[in-house]
Amino acid sequence: MGAERNEQLTPAEALRDYVGAFVAALASAGVRHACIAPGSRSTPLAMMLQREPAIRVWMHLDERSAAYFGLGIAKALREPVALVCTSGTAAVNFAPAVAEAMYDHVPLVVLTADRPPELHDVGANQTIDQQRLYGTHVKSFTQMALPNAAPPAIGQVTATARDAVATALAAPAGPVHLNCPFREPLIPAPGSPAFQEGAPPQAPDGTDAAAEPDAGLVERLARELVAVERGLIVCGPQDDDTFAAAVAGLAEALGFPLLADPLSQVRCGRHDTSLVVDGYDAFLRDAAMATALSPQLVLRFGAAPVSKPLLTYLEANGDRRQIHAGVAPNDPALTGNENIAADAAAFCRALAAALPSPAAAHELAGWAQAWLHTSERATAALLGRVAEESALSEPGAIVDVLSALPDRATLFAGNSMPVRDLDTCLTHSGPDVHFMANRGVSGIDGVMSTGLGVAAVSHEPLVLVIGDLSFYHDMNGLLAAQRYDMNVTIVLVNNDGGGIFSFLPQAAGLTTDGAQAGFETLFGTPHGLDFAPAAELYGLPYRHAETRDGFREAIAGSLAEPGVQIVELRTEREANARLHRELWSAAATAAAKVIEEPEAVSP
Amino acid sequence: MGAERNEQLTPAEALRDYVGAFVAALASAGVRHACIAPGSRSTPLAMMLQREPAIRVWMHLDERSAAYFGLGIAKALREPVALVCTSGTAAVNFAPAVAEAMYDHVPLVVLTADRPPELHDVGANQTIDQQRLYGTHVKSFTQMALPNAAPPAIGQVTATARDAVATALAAPAGPVHLNCPFREPLIPAPGSPAFQEGAPPQAPDGTDAAAEPDAGLVERLARELVAVERGLIVCGPQDDDTFAAAVAGLAEALGFPLLADPLSQVRCGRHDTSLVVDGYDAFLRDAAMATALSPQLVLRFGAAPVSKPLLTYLEANGDRRQIHAGVAPNDPALTGNENIAADAAAFCRALAAALPSPAAAHELAGWAQAWLHTSERATAALLGRVAEESALSEPGAIVDVLSALPDRATLFAGNSMPVRDLDTCLTHSGPDVHFMANRGVSGIDGVMSTGLGVAAVSHEPLVLVIGDLSFYHDMNGLLAAQRYDMNVTIVLVNNDGGGIFSFLPQAAGLTTDGAQAGFETLFGTPHGLDFAPAAELYGLPYRHAETRDGFREAIAGSLAEPGVQIVELRTEREANARLHRELWSAAATAAAKVIEEPEAVSP
Repeated sequence: MGAERNEQLTPAEALRDYVGAFVAALASAGVRHACIAPGSRSTPLAMMLQREPAIRVWMHLDERSAAYFGLGIAKALREPVALVCTSGTAAVNFAPAVAEAMYDHVPLVVLTADRPPELHDVGANQTIDQQRLYGTHVKSFTQMALPNAAPPAIGQVTATARDAVATALAAPAGPVHLNCPFREPLIPAPGSPAFQEGAPPQAPDGTDAAAEPDAGLVERLARELVAVERGLIVCGPQDDDTFAAAVAGLAEALGFPLLADPLSQVRCGRHDTSLVVDGYDAFLRDAAMATALSPQLVLRFGAAPVSKPLLTYLEANGDRRQIHAGVAPNDPALTGNENIAADAAAFCRALAAALPSPAAAHELAGWAQAWLHTSERATAALLGRVAEESALSEPGAIVDVLSALPDRATLFAGNSMPVRDLDTCLTHSGPDVHFMANRGVSGIDGVMSTGLGVAAVSHEPLVLVIGDLSFYHDMNGLLAAQRYDMNVTIVLVNNDGGGIFSFLPQAAGLTTDGAQAGFETLFGTPHGLDFAPAAELYGLPYRHAETRDGFREAIAGSLAEPGVQIVELRTEREANARLHRELWSAAATAAAKVIEEPEAVSP
Repeated sequence: MGAERNEQLTPAEALRDYVGAFVAALASAGVRHACIAPGSRSTPLAMMLQREPAIRVWMHLDERSAAYFGLGIAKALREPVALVCTSGTAAVNFAPAVAEAMYDHVPLVVLTADRPPELHDVGANQTIDQQRLYGTHVKSFTQMALPNAAPPAIGQVTATARDAVATALAAPAGPVHLNCPFREPLIPAPGSPAFQEGAPPQAPDGTDAAAEPDAGLVERLARELVAVERGLIVCGPQDDDTFAAAVAGLAEALGFPLLADPLSQVRCGRHDTSLVVDGYDAFLRDAAMATALSPQLVLRFGAAPVSKPLLTYLEANGDRRQIHAGVAPNDPALTGNENIAADAAAFCRALAAALPSPAAAHELAGWAQAWLHTSERATAALLGRVAEESALSEPGAIVDVLSALPDRATLFAGNSMPVRDLDTCLTHSGPDVHFMANRGVSGIDGVMSTGLGVAAVSHEPLVLVIGDLSFYHDMNGLLAAQRYDMNVTIVLVNNDGGGIFSFLPQAAGLTTDGAQAGFETLFGTPHGLDFAPAAELYGLPYRHAETRDGFREAIAGSLAEPGVQIVELRTEREANARLHRELWSAAATAAAKVIEEPEAVSP
């Protein structure tokens, strides 16, 4: 057939065959979900994706929310998701989520429709320069050819689709961009593509041959680590399910305390958490404490921890050996001075295997005991203070949510305050759930859509704890909640503005300056919004908690019902800052006793 | 003082002096408005801008809406507006409006705060590569130095600010990007900058020396044009207030019909509109008519006209001489085969002056009479049909809005259907108001915020006619309506989805295919939203018109009251497409009579 057949094709048939072959190749490479925003120029992609049985299409009206929703699906399933939009600013609206995907290592295949070359630079509608639109925030950019159904073109487009998915998945994963020009007519002929040539379908392979650690390096490191008395393991955000058990085993083999970020999946769960230090964010704020607990060596995994006191502590100990292991070469070094490019879980297992067995090792050293006792006392004091708080509060809300979560649920924490409160309140005996957040760029934008995207494919309940600015920013994302089945409780912590600024020098600087009004204008930014109408707009059940008991009831009620529900609680920014200072002070006082009077706290 | 004094400065004082000098230079170069979204890293810019008395600060919580609001101010005042945000995805959210500004030639000075170099590529929070973030969608990119108060640095930052504003203003105007890294501490010392050196303050100069047309070229062209019998003038979107009278004078001197886009400010107003052809969008849809009215030469001004039939007509006559005059070298050529780089109004005046005076010229030729009579009949038939329509309809809404507008008001038309309906229904005897839209990229995003930005500084009533998808997309922009004084009537034309797609082949293709469901899913995209709660969320008065009389009353009522008000009318996408086909058919039938039986319509 080939060229002979091709000569007889109408433009609509050629369009169908070319785009159809592309979409089939995406599907065979592992793309099972596509988020599409409506548009005219993107018609060939939208229609062929909808005809592809292996791909589920999710429709969205705001491209910004659409892209974050796709990011959520990709994060939940750890597989590549396609985003599709028309030309012009539609494509630009994808950019925030694309940046988050780049820095959070999430595979996305971004398909932007474009006008053909002859409509560029002539003032045509919805036509912008889309070449390298996302700059350095994608792993690769491909300018697609105009559709052409000759066999070499079909072969090429098939290969392009497979390469794009492979690039998106290769560790560290991330977004790729394919810009797709189309000429009219834009409607593909009915039916399936006439032929699909090229390599047979293959499943995506997310593993990387380079992920296994070098055996010699591991053996040498094992010999060195055995001699380390004051070693620490720090686990930042990561989402490999097998990592927690692996790093817990390594910690046991080394006798090192395990400082586990709330997003590391290591702080709590079914693995051994006996070496997990959960209170460091509170007690490392105390400079004397941080100095007393100065390490000799730090083993680091995952992305940058949420805790600023921990980051400051690591930076202050920048002259100590800090080793970071992971597949992402651009994972946070901060003060990490050695990088080992390897799969983190595999590295932990190999290193643990190369060490003397725990039984043969020394008893848990005073060093590890000091960390664990300090943490235990600090956390008990802090959570005791939270438990006393009968009024609604932001830490109280996190504690109550953690108590209410069923097994296998997901807690998605908003940026700014919620993820920090989670860091403060999550203990090593916390629930066996998955903890998520957007920590690639840590923006407050797109959080709601990302959470909804996760819930749309996870089939398990998800609780999203989100501040009012972040809720407002991505309110358009709630349309998906009305459209698609998912089981989500949105805990809207409404302190009428930017709560985190009350903790920054801006607050002190401007308020002592007598310029409270200036602070409120530039940073506090109260909006005065009552969000009940937002729930009504999207037809979502809404509960407003007035008391702490009422909040607990609202959470339980929401978790017992399907669909997306909003539970709002109001807090005050000033009171919240005050309470946090009390919590940290209680933690520091309790912790100081461990260091000052170690005998008083021996187990 | 200089170096000696500088040695004694604290970091907060150096920060104040450096950023203060920068802000003072922006103000002296003509920046009077800054739109700021809250953030921590941007603190130095936000605080020094607020201290600068010559600059008004507008606070916004969603950077996407903030940037479009700033675009609206810049469009209304034709002067540069500063945008300020913190690092990370905040800056990425500015990107859609930046692209619109680039293609719509609107001066913006985009200031993105950034982390200092040592926090890049180490996994720090809210840190992305912001170098050349907006790619080719800005006229220039500048990576600012870290603050430093030594006199050479102050001189440099002052020059940088002036250069940025000058670049933004130079014709064609557009956005510039300055990426501003800051180290902690981020709070400038109290007070004003200690010194500001460099050139004295100067007002911005938006004119371009190259804008005056070449005299020899004008004389030669005048000689050539006198011999042209079937000449046309086509005016696309532009916003120079002096252009309408200039081009009307040229048309009179040449005896050429004037095809004026609704956004050209030429179709109606206080200038002579006797040569204005207002019905071309309807009657040029008829291929026989378009052929009968084939021109010998076309003079073109402004951006690409909204009317697709007109663009098709110009393209079909691509072998005729088409001359485009304007300062923007990338103004739409489409099939224009000559470009004259000159200020359009100046060019019209010079050319008119070089022509024989109109009295000495021949009587209005049959050619011009044919256009004018055709247009008159077509428009009368079309608007007669709209007048008959007692039910609510999209063209009826535009007609009723046009009747209700007070002098000096602004009509801001949303993209997709409203701007096209304006094209259909606006006659040469229309109101003396300003017509605006976002036609740089013609996106449906950011339309509401742009309109609100215009209204915030224009001190005159503004009516924004917007479709439901566009309203939904930028709903966050309504927060500004609650915060700032402005007088706006938002006419929300709600047809529950993408109305324009009912006019495209997608509708026919999918519906004849029996795939109406597929059409609705991918293109119609009904959302089922009732927008009354959106008005409630922002505390805005809301009127829902059920009848055409009710709609007229609602518009009159809204225009009589201050503040921002929403008037919603529901229409049906299918009925709307049908009505439009009837209108075009009525226009074509009436127009055909002029060509077929010219004697029947002689004046």
